[in-house]
Amino acid sequence: MLKLGIPKGSLENATIELFKKSGWKISVSSRSYFPMVDDEEIRCTLARAQEMSRFVEMGRLDAGLTGKDWVLENGSDIVVVQDLVYSKTSASPARWVLVVTEDSPIRRLEDLKGKKIFTELVNFTRKYFAKRKINVDVEFSWGATEGKVIEGLADAIVEVTETGSTLRANGLRIVEELMQTNTQLIANHEAYRDPWKKEKIEQISLLLQGALRAEGMVGLKMNVPANDLKSVMEILPSITAPTIANLFQSDWFSVETIISEKIVRELIPQLLKRGAVGIIEYPLNKVI
Amino acid sequence: MLKLGIPKGSLENATIELFKKSGWKISVSSRSYFPMVDDEEIRCTLARAQEMSRFVEMGRLDAGLTGKDWVLENGSDIVVVQDLVYSKTSASPARWVLVVTEDSPIRRLEDLKGKKIFTELVNFTRKYFAKRKINVDVEFSWGATEGKVIEGLADAIVEVTETGSTLRANGLRIVEELMQTNTQLIANHEAYRDPWKKEKIEQISLLLQGALRAEGMVGLKMNVPANDLKSVMEILPSITAPTIANLFQSDWFSVETIISEKIVRELIPQLLKRGAVGIIEYPLNKVI
Amino acid sequence: MLKLGIPKGSLENATIELFKKSGWKISVSSRSYFPMVDDEEIRCTLARAQEMSRFVEMGRLDAGLTGKDWVLENGSDIVVVQDLVYSKTSASPARWVLVVTEDSPIRRLEDLKGKKIFTELVNFTRKYFAKRKINVDVEFSWGATEGKVIEGLADAIVEVTETGSTLRANGLRIVEELMQTNTQLIANHEAYRDPWKKEKIEQISLLLQGALRAEGMVGLKMNVPANDLKSVMEILPSITAPTIANLFQSDWFSVETIISEKIVRELIPQLLKRGAVGIIEYPLNKVI
Amino acid sequence: MLKLGIPKGSLENATIELFKKSGWKISVSSRSYFPMVDDEEIRCTLARAQEMSRFVEMGRLDAGLTGKDWVLENGSDIVVVQDLVYSKTSASPARWVLVVTEDSPIRRLEDLKGKKIFTELVNFTRKYFAKRKINVDVEFSWGATEGKVIEGLADAIVEVTETGSTLRANGLRIVEELMQTNTQLIANHEAYRDPWKKEKIEQISLLLQGALRAEGMVGLKMNVPANDLKSVMEILPSITAPTIANLFQSDWFSVETIISEKIVRELIPQLLKRGAVGIIEYPLNKVI
Amino acid sequence: MLKLGIPKGSLENATIELFKKSGWKISVSSRSYFPMVDDEEIRCTLARAQEMSRFVEMGRLDAGLTGKDWVLENGSDIVVVQDLVYSKTSASPARWVLVVTEDSPIRRLEDLKGKKIFTELVNFTRKYFAKRKINVDVEFSWGATEGKVIEGLADAIVEVTETGSTLRANGLRIVEELMQTNTQLIANHEAYRDPWKKEKIEQISLLLQGALRAEGMVGLKMNVPANDLKSVMEILPSITAPTIANLFQSDWFSVETIISEKIVRELIPQLLKRGAVGIIEYPLNKVI
Amino acid sequence: MLKLGIPKGSLENATIELFKKSGWKISVSSRSYFPMVDDEEIRCTLARAQEMSRFVEMGRLDAGLTGKDWVLENGSDIVVVQDLVYSKTSASPARWVLVVTEDSPIRRLEDLKGKKIFTELVNFTRKYFAKRKINVDVEFSWGATEGKVIEGLADAIVEVTETGSTLRANGLRIVEELMQTNTQLIANHEAYRDPWKKEKIEQISLLLQGALRAEGMVGLKMNVPANDLKSVMEILPSITAPTIANLFQSDWFSVETIISEKIVRELIPQLLKRGAVGIIEYPLNKVI
Repeated sequence: MLKLGIPKGSLENATIELFKKSGWKISVSSRSYFPMVDDEEIRCTLARAQEMSRFVEMGRLDAGLTGKDWVLENGSDIVVVQDLVYSKTSASPARWVLVVTEDSPIRRLEDLKGKKIFTELVNFTRKYFAKRKINVDVEFSWGATEGKVIEGLADAIVEVTETGSTLRANGLRIVEELMQTNTQLIANHEAYRDPWKKEKIEQISLLLQGALRAEGMVGLKMNVPANDLKSVMEILPSITAPTIANLFQSDWFSVETIISEKIVRELIPQLLKRGAVGIIEYPLNKVI
Repeated sequence: MLKLGIPKGSLENATIELFKKSGWKISVSSRSYFPMVDDEEIRCTLARAQEMSRFVEMGRLDAGLTGKDWVLENGSDIVVVQDLVYSKTSASPARWVLVVTEDSPIRRLEDLKGKKIFTELVNFTRKYFAKRKINVDVEFSWGATEGKVIEGLADAIVEVTETGSTLRANGLRIVEELMQTNTQLIANHEAYRDPWKKEKIEQISLLLQGALRAEGMVGLKMNVPANDLKSVMEILPSITAPTIANLFQSDWFSVETIISEKIVRELIPQLLKRGAVGIIEYPLNKVI
Repeated sequence: MLKLGIPKGSLENATIELFKKSGWKISVSSRSYFPMVDDEEIRCTLARAQEMSRFVEMGRLDAGLTGKDWVLENGSDIVVVQDLVYSKTSASPARWVLVVTEDSPIRRLEDLKGKKIFTELVNFTRKYFAKRKINVDVEFSWGATEGKVIEGLADAIVEVTETGSTLRANGLRIVEELMQTNTQLIANHEAYRDPWKKEKIEQISLLLQGALRAEGMVGLKMNVPANDLKSVMEILPSITAPTIANLFQSDWFSVETIISEKIVRELIPQLLKRGAVGIIEYPLNKVI
Repeated sequence: MLKLGIPKGSLENATIELFKKSGWKISVSSRSYFPMVDDEEIRCTLARAQEMSRFVEMGRLDAGLTGKDWVLENGSDIVVVQDLVYSKTSASPARWVLVVTEDSPIRRLEDLKGKKIFTELVNFTRKYFAKRKINVDVEFSWGATEGKVIEGLADAIVEVTETGSTLRANGLRIVEELMQTNTQLIANHEAYRDPWKKEKIEQISLLLQGALRAEGMVGLKMNVPANDLKSVMEILPSITAPTIANLFQSDWFSVETIISEKIVRELIPQLLKRGAVGIIEYPLNKVI
Repeated sequence: MLKLGIPKGSLENATIELFKKSGWKISVSSRSYFPMVDDEEIRCTLARAQEMSRFVEMGRLDAGLTGKDWVLENGSDIVVVQDLVYSKTSASPARWVLVVTEDSPIRRLEDLKGKKIFTELVNFTRKYFAKRKINVDVEFSWGATEGKVIEGLADAIVEVTETGSTLRANGLRIVEELMQTNTQLIANHEAYRDPWKKEKIEQISLLLQGALRAEGMVGLKMNVPANDLKSVMEILPSITAPTIANLFQSDWFSVETIISEKIVRELIPQLLKRGAVGIIEYPLNKVI
Repeated sequence: MLKLGIPKGSLENATIELFKKSGWKISVSSRSYFPMVDDEEIRCTLARAQEMSRFVEMGRLDAGLTGKDWVLENGSDIVVVQDLVYSKTSASPARWVLVVTEDSPIRRLEDLKGKKIFTELVNFTRKYFAKRKINVDVEFSWGATEGKVIEGLADAIVEVTETGSTLRANGLRIVEELMQTNTQLIANHEAYRDPWKKEKIEQISLLLQGALRAEGMVGLKMNVPANDLKSVMEILPSITAPTIANLFQSDWFSVETIISEKIVRELIPQLLKRGAVGIIEYPLNKVI
């Protein structure tokens, strides 16, 4: 049986949703610490993203999903099986940034010499400054980190943000980006040497990727007269070859392809111009 | 860059959902007044439906979505690019109606002569009565309008409703319907003369319509033996020609078509009787 | 017009969702006892699952959805049109079980002789013990039944559960399963003899089943080179014959089939090995 | 130790609040079925008001608080120690009433002959009609009773109400009041014969009454010149003799009394006219 | 009967609480527009603070509570019976202020010439600028006013604030305070000439003031040895003469007085130094 | 000005409530990090209890309220001005306990040799075991500590509890109590040497204690006939001498005293037996 760690808290719902699209139903009960999963070969455990890599490293879990940031913070010696770019809300990557108040005299990293920095990411931050030979005082912050620099209790903070708009709205300024992070599927070294566990982890990895890719892809289907087929095919992206079939007793073709959802809004006006009609777009669960 | 107004409040979620189906991800943060959108050519701004047409008219916004009712109320000189029939809850069109209590002696518009009407739609209501040469006293109401006529503070109100069932439940009676309303995509005259902006607005219009149309449509696919093909085709609605293909090494056909979701429940029992098997229905994102 | 009962409470949302997938939009207003439905031939009424079969039996409703458990409890003389296996949360069937505390001396049904049992299912439980000639005192419980055996107010309870995990978490033990239950579409005998009503009820039954079946099924589409077609077809489940078509000007085939969602996660790795590429999975609304 | 039942649900918070004013802190945890109480001689158990008298009668509880209505419905043979008039919201007594729709032809009890009545109070209602020799069909209703008569599923219902305003708002009419009810402290016969238990129950009864009485009473204190003392004393209610003391080195008196809060708003303007000054009102916890 | 208007919305709970302390229980039901009050001589009606003075002026209400700001905005000709200083949250008076963004070039009122101001208080604002002969464009704002100036849709806004901290937190700057406001008990001129109505309104006014005054006052009681009595009396504020009594069979005195709660925290340390012991403070409901 | 730290989170409301009873109104806005307080000599700052002593030690705050546990954990060199026993819910003192699962073989501290302990109180726990020369591996836990031992991720945890009932409900067992904790008012050494700041801190301390003591105390007043006075006085607790006064023109006495609320429920039945009548109990704000 594979002991798999599911991140608790802010990533929890997004992760469970992703597994659902991938083919596993995980259900979390408020009364149990072990989420149920409809696969007898997997045993799920909820753990905080901050702690996941430690549990995987020490072998209490065979594999788990967590953030690259916390893998680095913990300095865990584990296998990174797959980067999985998804997050709770936006499409922007999460970034750890060094932040001060708008009116702070601190403009560059060097200005922090001798100053007090609060962050949840203490080890990473210390290493970051040590490498640059800047002597700073990094203190661990128990959440609500932003407040500390606003109140003047800290000179700077290192905090995670996606777009930075909340920081700006609170009158804060980003001095430097320290790291971009994303979710990772990680595994314990020993577990990953076990052939059965490795295959199971890779099955999960394959289907999670298939579901993630489907999030950005759609199916597009249209009818095209024979004369316009070439012109239409020219602008259809060719990730995989489109499926083409004759319409019953006519010289029209049915054309069907899988494309990135992002370009649909640009593509459709052009397809219309080139003679395609009856264009429909349909959703996908997985693209492998 | 196109400055686009998104209606805040009751239409907000439905609008964002519609844009998502159309191909744009808009995300609203509780800490920022500017929703993010994944299109560098658009800058979204939240504005109340009541005020949208004023901002579009004065050019602070190039285009926006709002209700026809508020365009008329504001008397704004703007371009109506497209009517978009969707609402927060039901499929019934929203109507502004003149409402009195069940036991009121007011039966016809003429009975309102000299009476006090409260409404959020003051200008429209005044014009409506002026055109009919009925002298009434129309006062602006700060929401909770129903309460005023129930409490006897107003003789009548002009209020918006979809099905009228809430009004009836509160012991109120509709005297007359003054206007039907729906959402509209509107644009500033000057912006709409700019070719780039016009094309951008029309792209949005095209895809919003495609997504709206898809809401009422589904894909239907079935297998039909050669002998029954003609009989099945007779009852298949022909919005666009169905796609027909031979099944591999057999004399069966695969038939696929796009139809209104509303008729599926009537159509399926008939298709079964005429020999179709393996009928499946699948969802659509867009129908252009 | 068909008078149809919709179960109120825990099954309400799941039922309305199922009808939506089946092609009927039912909307419940907090201000009206009659849900609206977009079918002029149906008049919906909300009623508790516990009471539904009584109203159907006495003819105040023509048909309704309720649990098999409450049909048996009420001993109602009605037509069971169709078993519909769905529930509010899980895929496990709901079971009525006899439950005691973990440290209770009661191990078998016989140990209950002379004991006090609390349950909402009084008649069924009494008959169950009477048939086994065990003399017990069955009392009606007003909800919160679990609490009574934990507090020592009851010696045992008969309660409904899906997975039993909540019972275990509360330190309770299942002694015996008395019945499995599921949702049923039931009809009044007289109404079911009326040809028009019967056809309407069967239309509903057909489409509810189609929507339910679709919940566990997905469409799978892939491209396969001619050489690998046989090998791929060998492992594709054959519920209905797959649709196969030539790709335009190539010796590749497009293969499309409907399969159970449960096996997708096992099937995809094998399909890849056998030469399929561009595998996509898409959702279904109905499978008839 | 005294086994005391606390009513769960709608009366729960009001009861716990009353015990707090009486001198006992009861705290209910969502994780335990046994509320904690800061008195080692009492063990609290939560039970539904509907079932309380059955548990007290069979001796699983020594005493409990419940409604007079449910004592009568269950026909329980217990000791009524004390009537306690308090409720969840209003000061009006709760009444069980027979209710029909406004337009129902039913005007008097006799009109119900052969009709279907739904109620949660089945036994009481059956006896009520049997005593009046009116043959009706009384069925048990699983909550949401009002809905049944509105929907036409029942001809009449017997339901509890305080002011009747909700019934009227739903278009219902009261035909007759069947019973007034209030909370009661009840005891098991055997427990009440045990001298220690009896004294404990009476201590609880005494202090609950003291706290209830205080809810309607306030302390009133004022300064009065010697000349006006008689005039002021004439209008001061004399539940208990007021406390009067000389003010230090003056011919003024301090007058203090306990009066019903209801008359304060009428009394104060009069006291001012008769010469009292520096009037203050202060709250009370208990009045014995 | 006196028709009394209770302000709906942000002041609603504070007003009902104040009436409760004054001796009237008002209860608002979500199903009725008429709050119930336990005084047969009063009929309460909920109305928005913005509209109250209009209803009082036109005689649909005899009296009501509302804000001075809305009385001025509406220019209503009514009797101001009493200023009542209370608010939903803080002790700071509410102020209407002219607000711009921090980086706006607008520093003085004069800088607004030709600019666009949005506010809910249109009339008052227009008069304010007209009196100063500054030509501005004042537009009505439908709530969320702050957002407009942040988004750049307005050049300035006139908004209400208590402490200004929210404005600062959103990066806004106050240019000028236009008005301070507070709650007022107002009456219709004609109603106030009716002797019975006038007396009733004044009874309400007297008791509301008594309850408001009590909010800032407490009772203080202490024991003082004969020798220290003079010294203690010197620092006791003398709103009303303190009540002094001999302790039983001793040369100690009991001293009791009513003082402002605000000075208690300063007074107690001094009383201890001057020999007072057993100091207690108790709450008051009313101080007349 | 005194910079005072208020604990954020679980103690926040209880602390603000306590300050209110003590005479200071603190109001927290969701938009500002600085709570307002109605004392110009104090500037409040919200800080987490875990971090408070660090900010006080480094002088960013002059004084603050926090838990003794976190003072010890941080090893902060500060002045403990006053222990203040209050908590968010119960009257039981909070305890940090070493906890294992019920079926764990760990029975004594010694059994933990070489095991993994998770806790939020890392430093304290390490010192505790070091002093007993037991070699354990203590790791920092990010909240949800209980889950780790239940999931088997930790061998034991050190967690805070009041009654232990939640632990038991989750199937956990307490091995040893490591520390009892309570709230403390702490001060910075240098600030405490400043005479003005010291006096201000002590004023706060005095009034917080006065308010806390009042929570468990009530005023009791009764009328007693001269003959029974001695008998009544015998059982009245004598914290401070009761106040006794003659009732006007009678041989009855008014007796008033301050007693612990806990004994009222026992005392009142006895006072009645000894002849006291008209007993009232009233609440207190402060007892100094």
